[in-house]
Amino acid sequence: MWIFLNNRFVPREEARISVFDHGFLYGDGVYETLRIYHGQFLLLERHLDRLRHSCDQIDLLLPIAKEQWPSLLTELLRRNQLLEASIRITISRGEGELGLEPSLCAHPTVVVLAKPFAPYPNVLKKEGIRLELVGIRRNPLSAQSPRIKSLSFLNNILAKQEALRAGGFDALMLNIEGEISECTTSNLFYVREGTLRTPSLACGILEGVTREIVKTLAQEAGMVVEEGRYKPEELFQGDECFITNTSMEIMPVRQIGNHTIGSRCPGPMTTKLQGLFSQHLKRFLTQPPCLPDG
Amino acid sequence: MWIFLNNRFVPREEARISVFDHGFLYGDGVYETLRIYHGQFLLLERHLDRLRHSCDQIDLLLPIAKEQWPSLLTELLRRNQLLEASIRITISRGEGELGLEPSLCAHPTVVVLAKPFAPYPNVLKKEGIRLELVGIRRNPLSAQSPRIKSLSFLNNILAKQEALRAGGFDALMLNIEGEISECTTSNLFYVREGTLRTPSLACGILEGVTREIVKTLAQEAGMVVEEGRYKPEELFQGDECFITNTSMEIMPVRQIGNHTIGSRCPGPMTTKLQGLFSQHLKRFLTQPPCLPDG
Repeated sequence: MWIFLNNRFVPREEARISVFDHGFLYGDGVYETLRIYHGQFLLLERHLDRLRHSCDQIDLLLPIAKEQWPSLLTELLRRNQLLEASIRITISRGEGELGLEPSLCAHPTVVVLAKPFAPYPNVLKKEGIRLELVGIRRNPLSAQSPRIKSLSFLNNILAKQEALRAGGFDALMLNIEGEISECTTSNLFYVREGTLRTPSLACGILEGVTREIVKTLAQEAGMVVEEGRYKPEELFQGDECFITNTSMEIMPVRQIGNHTIGSRCPGPMTTKLQGLFSQHLKRFLTQPPCLPDG
Repeated sequence: MWIFLNNRFVPREEARISVFDHGFLYGDGVYETLRIYHGQFLLLERHLDRLRHSCDQIDLLLPIAKEQWPSLLTELLRRNQLLEASIRITISRGEGELGLEPSLCAHPTVVVLAKPFAPYPNVLKKEGIRLELVGIRRNPLSAQSPRIKSLSFLNNILAKQEALRAGGFDALMLNIEGEISECTTSNLFYVREGTLRTPSLACGILEGVTREIVKTLAQEAGMVVEEGRYKPEELFQGDECFITNTSMEIMPVRQIGNHTIGSRCPGPMTTKLQGLFSQHLKRFLTQPPCLPDG
């Protein structure tokens, strides 16, 4: 396994960073996860834009220019002989003396990992998953914005632990106001009265790339899509529910705690959107690779 | 410089961890900072108790038993030839595949760093510092409890950056309810109408070891100490203000943004407490080393 570290490719055993890296000491950094389908990056430019946005939010220099990423990522895939893959880009503040001031660190650390894409078990997509509505609330926008995809991930880890203890697949977190926000690494949608609903960005969620695709596909198919502020009770009375992220794409939700959502899972709109998503991927894969040219 | 890493002492250049360490990838871990006065640990047992508490809160195994710490830390000081020092203990979830589940990591990573204690410039303690009341709010107890001294420190880093941009020494953060909570690495006290006031733990703050000492010293000296929920406007009308942590001990606050606190800085109660704190240290230093025996 080859890993890109700062300025070169190194074997996994050599991919080591100083214990003075502020990514390790303070969770001071950001990351992004990409999906590669048959050697092609899905929406690379959008992921790179979000990486830049995360860096800007914490005043972190992104040391690799946008036009350099395609060749770097392609070389990483080539070295690891991967066609179906996930890539995680991590940018941390870098090595520096103890203290919170960004000026203590001269150079950001860049780590890019690629791994074979491991599909989720088929049964999950067929039968749906169970989420747990956890007590841990999502970090509020005013404290640590969920729109920053940061290395300080403890909020989500605490939620995930609580969900796993309860036997769930993942946690559904409410925001401080008691409205549904998102899961630990995915956005949530539900269907009620024929309308596809998803928490708005104002609820304090990550602006998911897959969330954007699903919204667009739904609108193109004539579905009514509504972004808003929803209480869990409204969700429990929904007819369908699913979560989305780059790895899972569209994952049906059968149950939230003891509440079964709708009468069958996946429901008709979820199935329709899964089909549209597959078609969208097929169209994407038959196009010539379209990489940003800077 | 020698660093303790997992099970041995290594030179700084060799103190490196895998990029798969979940401390780096997800800020999944905790830390503690100790102060050593003339080779003696101040309140070692209390710091170790808090480390254990932080570990428990995130369900992390603390791989070094309480009775092993004194000899480990003493050896670290000896190797680095330090008498006046700060020590940072970091425990992370350890190396593991990508994902939030703690079970992905077989062994926690332990890093213990010692550095010569660098006293704050005398002028700060003489004239006091300026804090900035920042817009970033402290993480709420329900999302990511400030009582966990965790590696996911972005909330505080964002606050510190905002304060530095405004030219302040540090940030004063409000909680989500708009009450004063704490600074990025210290607790806050203020004096009003002769009473020493400090935000209660319910406001969402770290239970500072120095905060505890100061409360005890103040009470022993017959001062009235009150813990409660305070709005910034009440603080601005205070007569004195100071912040506390293990490194700064008692640091007077002259100003918060444009608000000058009281008519002179440090005020009489702050000066009195600084004197009591020095005496407390002297008593401690003339005692034989008192290490926990497990």
